[in-house]
Amino acid sequence: MSHQAYSLKHLAEAVGGEVHGDPDIQITGISTLQSARADQLSFLANPAYEKYLENTLAGAVIVHPKLLDKCVTHVLVHENPYLAYAQLSHFWDRSSLIQKSDYSVHPKAVIHENATIENDVLIEAGVVIGAGVIVKSGAIIGANSVVGEDCIIGAETRLSSNVTLYYGVSVGEKCVIHSGVVIGSDGFGFAPVNGEWFKIAQLGGVVIEDGVEIGANTTIDRGALDNTVIEKGVILDNQIQVAHNVRIGQNTAIAACSAIAGSTVIGKNCIIGGASGIAGHLTIVDGVHITAMTMVIKSLTEPGVYSSGTGVQTNAKWRKSIARLRQLDKMAGRLKRLEQALKDKSPD
Amino acid sequence: MSHQAYSLKHLAEAVGGEVHGDPDIQITGISTLQSARADQLSFLANPAYEKYLENTLAGAVIVHPKLLDKCVTHVLVHENPYLAYAQLSHFWDRSSLIQKSDYSVHPKAVIHENATIENDVLIEAGVVIGAGVIVKSGAIIGANSVVGEDCIIGAETRLSSNVTLYYGVSVGEKCVIHSGVVIGSDGFGFAPVNGEWFKIAQLGGVVIEDGVEIGANTTIDRGALDNTVIEKGVILDNQIQVAHNVRIGQNTAIAACSAIAGSTVIGKNCIIGGASGIAGHLTIVDGVHITAMTMVIKSLTEPGVYSSGTGVQTNAKWRKSIARLRQLDKMAGRLKRLEQALKDKSPD
Amino acid sequence: MSHQAYSLKHLAEAVGGEVHGDPDIQITGISTLQSARADQLSFLANPAYEKYLENTLAGAVIVHPKLLDKCVTHVLVHENPYLAYAQLSHFWDRSSLIQKSDYSVHPKAVIHENATIENDVLIEAGVVIGAGVIVKSGAIIGANSVVGEDCIIGAETRLSSNVTLYYGVSVGEKCVIHSGVVIGSDGFGFAPVNGEWFKIAQLGGVVIEDGVEIGANTTIDRGALDNTVIEKGVILDNQIQVAHNVRIGQNTAIAACSAIAGSTVIGKNCIIGGASGIAGHLTIVDGVHITAMTMVIKSLTEPGVYSSGTGVQTNAKWRKSIARLRQLDKMAGRLKRLEQALKDKSPD
Repeated sequence: MSHQAYSLKHLAEAVGGEVHGDPDIQITGISTLQSARADQLSFLANPAYEKYLENTLAGAVIVHPKLLDKCVTHVLVHENPYLAYAQLSHFWDRSSLIQKSDYSVHPKAVIHENATIENDVLIEAGVVIGAGVIVKSGAIIGANSVVGEDCIIGAETRLSSNVTLYYGVSVGEKCVIHSGVVIGSDGFGFAPVNGEWFKIAQLGGVVIEDGVEIGANTTIDRGALDNTVIEKGVILDNQIQVAHNVRIGQNTAIAACSAIAGSTVIGKNCIIGGASGIAGHLTIVDGVHITAMTMVIKSLTEPGVYSSGTGVQTNAKWRKSIARLRQLDKMAGRLKRLEQALKDKSPD
Repeated sequence: MSHQAYSLKHLAEAVGGEVHGDPDIQITGISTLQSARADQLSFLANPAYEKYLENTLAGAVIVHPKLLDKCVTHVLVHENPYLAYAQLSHFWDRSSLIQKSDYSVHPKAVIHENATIENDVLIEAGVVIGAGVIVKSGAIIGANSVVGEDCIIGAETRLSSNVTLYYGVSVGEKCVIHSGVVIGSDGFGFAPVNGEWFKIAQLGGVVIEDGVEIGANTTIDRGALDNTVIEKGVILDNQIQVAHNVRIGQNTAIAACSAIAGSTVIGKNCIIGGASGIAGHLTIVDGVHITAMTMVIKSLTEPGVYSSGTGVQTNAKWRKSIARLRQLDKMAGRLKRLEQALKDKSPD
Repeated sequence: MSHQAYSLKHLAEAVGGEVHGDPDIQITGISTLQSARADQLSFLANPAYEKYLENTLAGAVIVHPKLLDKCVTHVLVHENPYLAYAQLSHFWDRSSLIQKSDYSVHPKAVIHENATIENDVLIEAGVVIGAGVIVKSGAIIGANSVVGEDCIIGAETRLSSNVTLYYGVSVGEKCVIHSGVVIGSDGFGFAPVNGEWFKIAQLGGVVIEDGVEIGANTTIDRGALDNTVIEKGVILDNQIQVAHNVRIGQNTAIAACSAIAGSTVIGKNCIIGGASGIAGHLTIVDGVHITAMTMVIKSLTEPGVYSSGTGVQTNAKWRKSIARLRQLDKMAGRLKRLEQALKDKSPD
């Protein structure tokens, strides 16, 4: 972490908050209530941590106005402490600290003569850029990344190291693409013929709109004919699989290790828990929340919260549950016979 | 997409089909019935899309003979329109368009002096090739890929960018290996000793037979003693995990994010749905179809369709289902007591 | 596999075992009882393979003293044959065969002038090392790996090819990090604001302690404020996701494709089966064993074996099970009414 110092007043102004206490105290970083030192800022966003407020050693804390009188130190009062923390976190983010003087193209990058590299970009060692690529101003391409022919890297977009873009991938502005990500690989399309598989060339592309974040080792396949599309503001965690011709709507968030099968369309502002699987050719409407490890095998046509799976039990209890689950059809028959028997006995 | 033009007659001959309409119409690409333009070809393979046939703007369509009279444009009649589409898709596939003149070894590739590089290969920038490697004619190795010592890359096999092969991996002819794939990493073998783990060196190799496709970020571990084997014609989607000493039989297809644990043997012509897990030391016979997200914890000794899991429900209903599932053992006891009570009451 | 020959006596001494038979027989490798040749060593660790003991063609076998009289060939007697095999496997491991003379820094590696590279390291072609990095003696960094600023690579630690470390990652001694691994990528932290996501800079680091093994394409995110920590002796298989601020306790083993969500703390000596998911902010105590594909959505406060999921069935039976599962709440009501009806009828 960088240790640049800012006055509490400067920080409060940056987020539209108000200082109670010494506005000139110097802050060199952010930490949790439990770990913060006297030169660090902390915050209270989760009520579960309120108990730590009175003993924190933090030099200052960000809190909601209603908690002001519980603070034992200098305070940055803000209506949304979590957002204020999010905003201020970037003051000490090393990866945000690219200066204009850092922009350069490393001599050990290999850039095709027909690529267009705008001014003020940072291209690190070992990067390979194909013909027809356009890298826009403010973009960063990390070491050993490969950008295939005719890709577009939008302004202020950052590719980390070891990213792979196949040909014809379009990435918008201000995106963040983490290491090991692969975009534009072939969709899994094969025609069966006499017990073998005949590969279908994947002729579509991939469009990543503005402000998208893509986590490490996530894969996004190119479309079979049309494009695979990730709309603006989408956030994808690590190791997510996005198959060909999927469309993910604006500001949808997907947690790690989820998989979306081919041609499925996910709406806007959805939240999809980790390790979920969504079958192909489905439609998920806007505002759906899917909890972790859910198996989605039908379209979801109403907003709401959806789940599947059997939560963890001791192995002994689980074995009983599962054995009984398999007897359930027979149990249902026995129940029906009992009902009939009782009805037959009944005088009415 | 490349826009090379071909006459409808030329395309029909290439797939053994028949033209109804103008054989000289020029076709510059393939698209869906809904999106195709007048210079594009489309096709009808899925009956669900038959409704789009009468309004398509496509210049020509591939259809089964029985649908000929429903077409409003020029027609390429074929007994298997999906296969015809698959075959013709390659006419416009940029990644297939390597010319003999494209073959070359980039000066920024690092190739060991004891590697054997046959004629007519394409090795891109940043590739690192170890001692004893053999790269056969027509092979392509994408930028920044690493090929360990004594690997064999078969004729006309294509490694995309950022692929990693450890030492001693053998890849057959006409394989396609996508970016981020790792083949030959150590299997997960450790002996427990006094609460710690003692690593077992993984001395086997990996054999990938001819015509195998391996999706992005898939991992295939080397064997502990014998080899891990992927038989010919197998197709693996993205982010699949193949553990040490697994064998996958000919023409088996595995969808994304599935995991096969160590020493399991999967038969020929199986289809395994996405995000499935198959435990170790199992045998799956030929012709098994496993639906998505299935948890396979026993050998499957008969062909057929297999499944597990609880499909998606609203969270409210799911909570009830799961609570009841945990009471199931008690419910079974109550049912039994009821049956006994009714029997006791019965005059017969 | 290397074919270096050792006498049986030499091997027995190396593992503290005893030879029965010819101590001078020359052994050039290890194989299974079924495949071993006359110049190879085999072993019996799993009773299920005892049947192969009498027909093995192996030149020698490692067995427990109690099986000595069942052997038909030369014998290396050892109290723990599996451990003896594990130890001897390294005698023929090519990746262990780095000689002092192999240490070198490839001229096509790109190393920042402010990095500290100790003596006796192997840095392969295409490696990119940032400012402030320390690479300790005996470390190996495979081709095209990228090591971000201020990372520490401990003594005798091995990074395979195409590994990515973001800035400020600390890796201990004698670790093994496989290809495609990403360590130090941003945790998935975003504050919701007006239907959009505001990124929270991830200011923590990652600490990998001594003797950790990390499988291919596994991802470990940096902490939001504090560090993500993998304690010593932990073994992680391929394609595991470790989210920000997770801590994994000493000697815990996690099988492939498992995912651990943010801030969860896992104890020591746990075993977590493949493709399991553990939700965020949970605590798993020492000595927990989670079977494969388990969905852990609550803390586990007692050691023991835990499971979830419904094992594989034929699709036809599964459909019935699932349909009945959804009726379970109604069935419970019917059961209760039956009990009441029977009670009402009862003369007592």
